[in-house]
Amino acid sequence: MPPRLRSLIYPDWIRECRGASLRDDLLAGVITAVLLVPQGMALAMLAGLPPVLGLYAGILPPLFYALLGSSRALAVGPVSVAAVLVASALGNLGYVPGDPAWIQGAVTLATLSMIILLTMAALQLGALVNYLSHPVLAGFTSGAAVVIIMSQVPQLTGIELPRDAALPGQVLALAANPDQLRLPVVVTGGAVLLCLLLARGPLTRVLQRLGLGEERGRLASRCMPLLIILAATGVAALLALESRGVPVVGEIPTGLPRPSLEFLVLKDWRDLLPAALVISIIGYVESVSVARVLAWRRRQRIDPNRELLALGAANAGAAFSGTLPVAGGFARSVVNFEAGARTQLAGIITASLVALTALLLTPLFHTLPLPALAALIIVAVLPLIDIHTFRSAWRYDRADGLAMAITFLGVVLVDIELGLLAGLCLSVIALLWRTSHPHVAIVGRVPGTSYYRNVERQEVDTWPNLLLLRIDESLYFANSAYIEQVVGNTVAERPAVRHVVLICTAVNHIDHSALETLHGMTENLREAGVTLHLAAVKGPVLDRLQASGLLDALGDGQVFFNTEQAVLTLGQDRTKAPDATTDTASGENRKP
Amino acid sequence: MPPRLRSLIYPDWIRECRGASLRDDLLAGVITAVLLVPQGMALAMLAGLPPVLGLYAGILPPLFYALLGSSRALAVGPVSVAAVLVASALGNLGYVPGDPAWIQGAVTLATLSMIILLTMAALQLGALVNYLSHPVLAGFTSGAAVVIIMSQVPQLTGIELPRDAALPGQVLALAANPDQLRLPVVVTGGAVLLCLLLARGPLTRVLQRLGLGEERGRLASRCMPLLIILAATGVAALLALESRGVPVVGEIPTGLPRPSLEFLVLKDWRDLLPAALVISIIGYVESVSVARVLAWRRRQRIDPNRELLALGAANAGAAFSGTLPVAGGFARSVVNFEAGARTQLAGIITASLVALTALLLTPLFHTLPLPALAALIIVAVLPLIDIHTFRSAWRYDRADGLAMAITFLGVVLVDIELGLLAGLCLSVIALLWRTSHPHVAIVGRVPGTSYYRNVERQEVDTWPNLLLLRIDESLYFANSAYIEQVVGNTVAERPAVRHVVLICTAVNHIDHSALETLHGMTENLREAGVTLHLAAVKGPVLDRLQASGLLDALGDGQVFFNTEQAVLTLGQDRTKAPDATTDTASGENRKP
Repeated sequence: MPPRLRSLIYPDWIRECRGASLRDDLLAGVITAVLLVPQGMALAMLAGLPPVLGLYAGILPPLFYALLGSSRALAVGPVSVAAVLVASALGNLGYVPGDPAWIQGAVTLATLSMIILLTMAALQLGALVNYLSHPVLAGFTSGAAVVIIMSQVPQLTGIELPRDAALPGQVLALAANPDQLRLPVVVTGGAVLLCLLLARGPLTRVLQRLGLGEERGRLASRCMPLLIILAATGVAALLALESRGVPVVGEIPTGLPRPSLEFLVLKDWRDLLPAALVISIIGYVESVSVARVLAWRRRQRIDPNRELLALGAANAGAAFSGTLPVAGGFARSVVNFEAGARTQLAGIITASLVALTALLLTPLFHTLPLPALAALIIVAVLPLIDIHTFRSAWRYDRADGLAMAITFLGVVLVDIELGLLAGLCLSVIALLWRTSHPHVAIVGRVPGTSYYRNVERQEVDTWPNLLLLRIDESLYFANSAYIEQVVGNTVAERPAVRHVVLICTAVNHIDHSALETLHGMTENLREAGVTLHLAAVKGPVLDRLQASGLLDALGDGQVFFNTEQAVLTLGQDRTKAPDATTDTASGENRKP
Repeated sequence: MPPRLRSLIYPDWIRECRGASLRDDLLAGVITAVLLVPQGMALAMLAGLPPVLGLYAGILPPLFYALLGSSRALAVGPVSVAAVLVASALGNLGYVPGDPAWIQGAVTLATLSMIILLTMAALQLGALVNYLSHPVLAGFTSGAAVVIIMSQVPQLTGIELPRDAALPGQVLALAANPDQLRLPVVVTGGAVLLCLLLARGPLTRVLQRLGLGEERGRLASRCMPLLIILAATGVAALLALESRGVPVVGEIPTGLPRPSLEFLVLKDWRDLLPAALVISIIGYVESVSVARVLAWRRRQRIDPNRELLALGAANAGAAFSGTLPVAGGFARSVVNFEAGARTQLAGIITASLVALTALLLTPLFHTLPLPALAALIIVAVLPLIDIHTFRSAWRYDRADGLAMAITFLGVVLVDIELGLLAGLCLSVIALLWRTSHPHVAIVGRVPGTSYYRNVERQEVDTWPNLLLLRIDESLYFANSAYIEQVVGNTVAERPAVRHVVLICTAVNHIDHSALETLHGMTENLREAGVTLHLAAVKGPVLDRLQASGLLDALGDGQVFFNTEQAVLTLGQDRTKAPDATTDTASGENRKP
């Protein structure tokens, strides 16, 4: 049996499931399930779907992923960014939440994600994820978190907000209708929000101080969201909150997802395709990022193309179960890892427990108040608002900070997908801008050495007939004209110059535009009585230049092994020479 | 008076107009006018406009350019690429050639070009032109030349072609209607075409051999197009070709352009804006390219922002005269330069002669056959088909060759503007692709030296606890994940490694995405018991890293001045050591 096929049927990690590893996986699987059950229901509602579909998204998808994925700890299931993208895409296309067409649309998005990810896997496009800049991604997830929080405001206050308005419109609508505020809703949501926030940080520290130990204290605090949700449900039943105007989840059908091939109908797939592309790619990027971080810590490897395959299969599971697109969740995967997950057995245990919940325990959640779920979502997405990265990016590099800010503002103020697109364009423009004005230094020899340094920074020897220019960038279309201009202006200012040497230590590549510019520069300099030379050209670059005929076109111009050789051959009448060595011309220059 | 203002009223070059320079300018101005008169009429017809508008485009625009431009030899006026773009844009929007609305559309395009170029001048965007890759530009002009030639086929054959069809449709229409072929039209066009082709190369050589001298022979051949056109006009009058079905230019109104402010109406400007953007930018790129080449040869300078201003003014002149957008023509500028133009006085002389022609001589062209003008255009655009660049780009770099081919095919087969857009996107993707898989070499020390070379290329000393990685590219979002993966995989394969040193000699920039990756890598390596170090980091990069806090985050990791210092400090138990030196640890490492 070929190894690739065998690994599909009998994954590598199965051999490792014994002893301590088995116990660790069991514990991690339970902890993750405890987190996933309320979150799954909340995420389904965020996507405008019945809560039970959130549970379904936590059953087949992680099972399918466990069989194929290369990450040991990635927790696959419903995620917040995909959920809000589903809601935004379907809302933009005029679907109405609650309609059967809305659910069908979500399933179509899952099916399209499956097709997109499997196609990318077949084309081995795993490396594509690398083309997204971190600040743009951080701006996108921060903006998505703000959009998610705003989408939960009606649930938390009772005030209806226009679904299709941008943020300023929603804030105005909020301010204009204080009379719609319903006190029982606000109190329920507010109380749950407060409990969840306390359970995150302060409670962990209290538990740890009470002698539970760091590890156990953290694990105990992981279980708090479920306990708080169960408590809220109990209180709501006792106080009959539903009759006081607090909306509750209501009846959740008991049972497992009924597998169906209906998802293959793919109604409206053309309209949904752009949204499905964004959902798949962002979901894939999120999954691979966290998988990579976790794999690093144990010196394991992630195969990006294998991840495409496994996530495609997970989305097949989602579509097959009639639910929304899934991905590897960042926060849940970290919890899974820190709870001790060693292999995908943990994922299988999580899936089994979620299935058990869907089968038997959904009646427990009948009086679960919707404001409590809204509070759960808000607490879950708060860490996505990444002010730290913005501050650090802005301080480190204005262009990166700007790209992040514009992505964030675009997502929040205009449209979640257009904002991402704007950020991506901006990051490419910033790249072109940055490399289009490379640092070009006129250098001279540090007296008594063979080191060459910028004439503006150090006292160095120079030669009036010789111009030494060091170019600190690869030469390509966006900077070749700039470099031509710099060389032209510098030569025009120095009528005595007869030789120009371009020092190429930092030139990793020369594209065809730059090659043509070099040809033109050679010829133009020759017409002006100046010879162009190159020095310290890297091997692969030199090979290409040779094949292209540029070296022949240089005429009297030479390619020197290093700057020193160029100076020994071409320099005359050194100026500024405090402690001179003789300027004997050497014949050791190389012209390949 | 501030110098900027004075130079607007009293250009620098006026001082130089005396003696030999004055004579040279006079001759060049005459030669260029002789070329411009028939070409201008032909280009106007290419744009679907009355021939006299081509003459008008050669009067005010070069005068305005002469007062403001920084190039001494650029010949501004109607150009073929702008003319075909005008025809394509107006045709796409449903205008009909011959309608007054068509002319109005062309004038609106000139006005929009003026606004775009002046806005770019105000924003100092002159350097934007550098972001166009040469192969994409060459693909675009080659494709435009093919589109222009196909557009002249009906004039040369009498066969009507569908205006809105792409090339294959036009070729099919040509093949399907051989019965429409009109012999007198074909003979006229063919004869003129042959004469023009002969006059280009062979005649020059004959004249030179007859003792005219190289210089005079070339100048004489420059006058041939006008003579051939005049001869064709005379023959057409003698043989009454018009009555035999050969269309002629007909009556051309005598007189100068009547300046009018009607162009400010700007009807349909929203629809025409994309085309105007392409016309302005391509026209600007063409102008600056040729201006730069010519300035180089005399060690003069071109100020890109000044060129934007001057070309904006030239288009104001075009709009004011009620004609099509203008630019600096490549071929005509070279003729002007080679004929001896020293200053813009040559341009003013050309403009005056064209004005004189429009005022007095247009009746001469009454019986000028349209097939002759079509032949003139074809001969003028033939050199734009740049097979040489394609061959050289393809040989030098597949990605550049592909970008050029796709731009060419897009322009010819799909749409002239979409083709350009596709090429531009492709050149950016190729850039990302190229820099996203940088060369990362594991290096070791060449025995007995302090040189470090790739372990796969040379027999070198290595140290089992020490991994030396040289990265041959700036670190940024498109390659940071790749590098992280390479480092991760390399470390995973070498369990003995305790120190990783990244050698940064070729790293010119580290963006924020890469900074975060370095932070993550440091932490992940530490969890795996490995320390990350840097070596040979460039000054500006190091300053930024220090400010960002990365150097503190390295923990035990250090920044070494060069690779040798890293090895002296960290290396233990060297392997492969034919002629060893001792491995004493040195304390000279630098941690700024």
